[in-house]
Amino acid sequence: MAKRIIVIGSGAAGMSAASAARQAARDAEITVLTEDEDIAYSPCAIPWGIEGRSGWDEIVMHTPEFYEKERGIKVLTRTRVESVDGEAKTVTAAGKTYGYDSLVIATGGRVFVPPVEGTDLGNVFVVRTVRDGKDIQAALADARNVVIGGAGVIGLELAVAFREMGKDVTVIEMMDQVIPRIADKDMADVIQRHLEDRGIRFVMKAPIQAVKGESKVNAVTAAGKDYPCDVMIFATGVRANLDIPKSLGLDVGQLGALIASPTLNAYRRGRLVPDIFVAGDVMQCESAVMPGATMSQLGSTAVRQGRVAGNNAAGGDKMLFGPVASPWVSAIGDLQIAGTGLSLGLASWYGVDTVCGKAEGLTRARYYPGGKPLTVKVLADRTTHRIVGAQIIAGEEATGRIDWLTSAIVNGMTAEDFLVRSENAYCPPTSMVKDVVISAVEDLCRQM
Amino acid sequence: MAKRIIVIGSGAAGMSAASAARQAARDAEITVLTEDEDIAYSPCAIPWGIEGRSGWDEIVMHTPEFYEKERGIKVLTRTRVESVDGEAKTVTAAGKTYGYDSLVIATGGRVFVPPVEGTDLGNVFVVRTVRDGKDIQAALADARNVVIGGAGVIGLELAVAFREMGKDVTVIEMMDQVIPRIADKDMADVIQRHLEDRGIRFVMKAPIQAVKGESKVNAVTAAGKDYPCDVMIFATGVRANLDIPKSLGLDVGQLGALIASPTLNAYRRGRLVPDIFVAGDVMQCESAVMPGATMSQLGSTAVRQGRVAGNNAAGGDKMLFGPVASPWVSAIGDLQIAGTGLSLGLASWYGVDTVCGKAEGLTRARYYPGGKPLTVKVLADRTTHRIVGAQIIAGEEATGRIDWLTSAIVNGMTAEDFLVRSENAYCPPTSMVKDVVISAVEDLCRQM
Repeated sequence: MAKRIIVIGSGAAGMSAASAARQAARDAEITVLTEDEDIAYSPCAIPWGIEGRSGWDEIVMHTPEFYEKERGIKVLTRTRVESVDGEAKTVTAAGKTYGYDSLVIATGGRVFVPPVEGTDLGNVFVVRTVRDGKDIQAALADARNVVIGGAGVIGLELAVAFREMGKDVTVIEMMDQVIPRIADKDMADVIQRHLEDRGIRFVMKAPIQAVKGESKVNAVTAAGKDYPCDVMIFATGVRANLDIPKSLGLDVGQLGALIASPTLNAYRRGRLVPDIFVAGDVMQCESAVMPGATMSQLGSTAVRQGRVAGNNAAGGDKMLFGPVASPWVSAIGDLQIAGTGLSLGLASWYGVDTVCGKAEGLTRARYYPGGKPLTVKVLADRTTHRIVGAQIIAGEEATGRIDWLTSAIVNGMTAEDFLVRSENAYCPPTSMVKDVVISAVEDLCRQM
Repeated sequence: MAKRIIVIGSGAAGMSAASAARQAARDAEITVLTEDEDIAYSPCAIPWGIEGRSGWDEIVMHTPEFYEKERGIKVLTRTRVESVDGEAKTVTAAGKTYGYDSLVIATGGRVFVPPVEGTDLGNVFVVRTVRDGKDIQAALADARNVVIGGAGVIGLELAVAFREMGKDVTVIEMMDQVIPRIADKDMADVIQRHLEDRGIRFVMKAPIQAVKGESKVNAVTAAGKDYPCDVMIFATGVRANLDIPKSLGLDVGQLGALIASPTLNAYRRGRLVPDIFVAGDVMQCESAVMPGATMSQLGSTAVRQGRVAGNNAAGGDKMLFGPVASPWVSAIGDLQIAGTGLSLGLASWYGVDTVCGKAEGLTRARYYPGGKPLTVKVLADRTTHRIVGAQIIAGEEATGRIDWLTSAIVNGMTAEDFLVRSENAYCPPTSMVKDVVISAVEDLCRQM
């Protein structure tokens, strides 16, 4: 009998899992169950969708009909899973019960909204789905003052988008820097100044205390002060969506997310569950940098996890998901900021002492027109000299450089070894003869 | 007494060596001897200089006066070294004799010009120095037909520059593809078509048989046919400049270039020579991909070698130069082409059987405006599954990607391991959620 695979969730992880399952098992019966009304889109695209830089129809790359017709995958949208019976191997959703041989849990995360009054008022949003994006776009039509809670990457991308749309934008952040978890203050401050120069207002070290208004929001209170507000967005981080996993008694880790094996099987009371697989924002990962758990929660990670979970759920040649350094990048105004591995903050969470190196230069040869400023910061563990993290701010071409440093990190290179064995391609229109990445590691070795 | 260091050669290797020596030894007496009239420039910049995209004064970054004043390095230009006495430890140049404690040989390479009649005619050039570039620029003023011998990277960059200047450009190549040694035919053909579309003519599988004319060139004969020619450029590869090394009896390797230790000391009859160091195009390297020698001859490599040789010559904390994958990149018209490690041709030189994977996509998310086509090809060794080479053609951002793949190669990652442990940073304006590099390695694994 054909294997029955059920995937819960239609984000990057869920849809990748379904497609990988199809590649591994031509005759499997594959069903995706999702509360969402749109599927197969990248939530990272929503800021650009709101701004109108990308069309909603382009962002949503495939319809359920496409999956049905092209890949033989049944996708049931607006279908909330009510319960899963792990003994009987059935899923109940929208009043109907489906049997499975393998289950993939890709329930993602939900935006953490601080427990203050007024968050249920009109024109208060989170940014998770295309529906959220469209609702925000509609609400913005009459709005002048927009407040964003949270100065993480998504919050800042939204701030730029709203500013481009001519809004008055205030970002309220609890910590003393933007991108607090994954960027260091010296790098974050450059980004904050860049955004301030574009007219975005920042209120730092200010926990949000209340959202005020009648039926709709009209002000936000933070650190004792009121800020006028027509539209409020919470971009305050994502927590794993654990309702279903908890009902199944699956093991949840230290970071409040599902634990998975390298094959992306779930665990129950320390034992591997052979017929339940996990992918995406709902799970925690192993760190490639330090022994221990880490949260990745990136679209690129979700796609890779989905591929492994779906393939293994379908019984394909076994695939493994490795430990992660979680490289990230964001285009914020005219700057790109990228990072990988540990920031100073994350390093201190591991109790690790770090040494930093930093270099500034250009993205092209000095004499070649059009080069943009490029700053690279590299962190090493003081004990082993291993490179454990890096951050880049650049006018262009940050992404490839951070992927390069990620490779050095996951391969365990020390700073000294990096200088002996690392090379950069060079031609005047695309880099300096000695890339700034190498100069930063030279500085790191001097500091050691 | 202060250590006396003499550097022969003022290219990227020589000047990096001199500067590194100064960093390592504040009181050393450092002298650079060079035939050239300009120093501290990248020969890779010359095509852009000829085209006028970069000014000659910008390309030449520093003068001898700068080195004297800022770094205490004496640079004697237009000073040909006549002889070196390795016993007495002296160098004779322009009739004067200089004693040394450490000698750095960075004599570079010279362009190989095929032994045919007429190469000494007027308006026949090679491209090695800024002087060559200026002479070519002057000759082009009255020229209509330009012939380039050799379709390597430099030949193609020149072809584009001349075409931009409105010239009638013919490239004559002995092999059946452009960039024959380091690019594979399928990738090279894309570049050739791109240049043909820009009006550049290619004559393939055609060895140059004669350069014809009275005092100046007026035609070039290749494969039995005459091509009208007002200016002829040989871009036919670089051979190590071995006059001085041979007079010193230093060991020359299988590839016709100096052999150096990881500390970049020279050898004589198999014994390390403690007071002679080597850097740049004059030396062969160890391959990071396969056991054996390889030629690197890249500006980026020369800079790294210079730093090691100069530091060690000055007695600094020992530095090492590792094996190389030699990543390269070139901007040719609207395309960037890049490569690293082994091409199919180089792999066959090592006797290695390869498996290829290939993927096409974009440099940005599909729905984000401005994305450019991106093709990535990856080669693995069929025996060990190690990734041994890669090539990229892209409208933008090839460089960082090839540096990333280079890191995977020098760290010995297999194709399968790459999929388990490699990650790409993602945001819609700078990459697809699964970068094309990863898709290419997925394809590679399928082919294995």
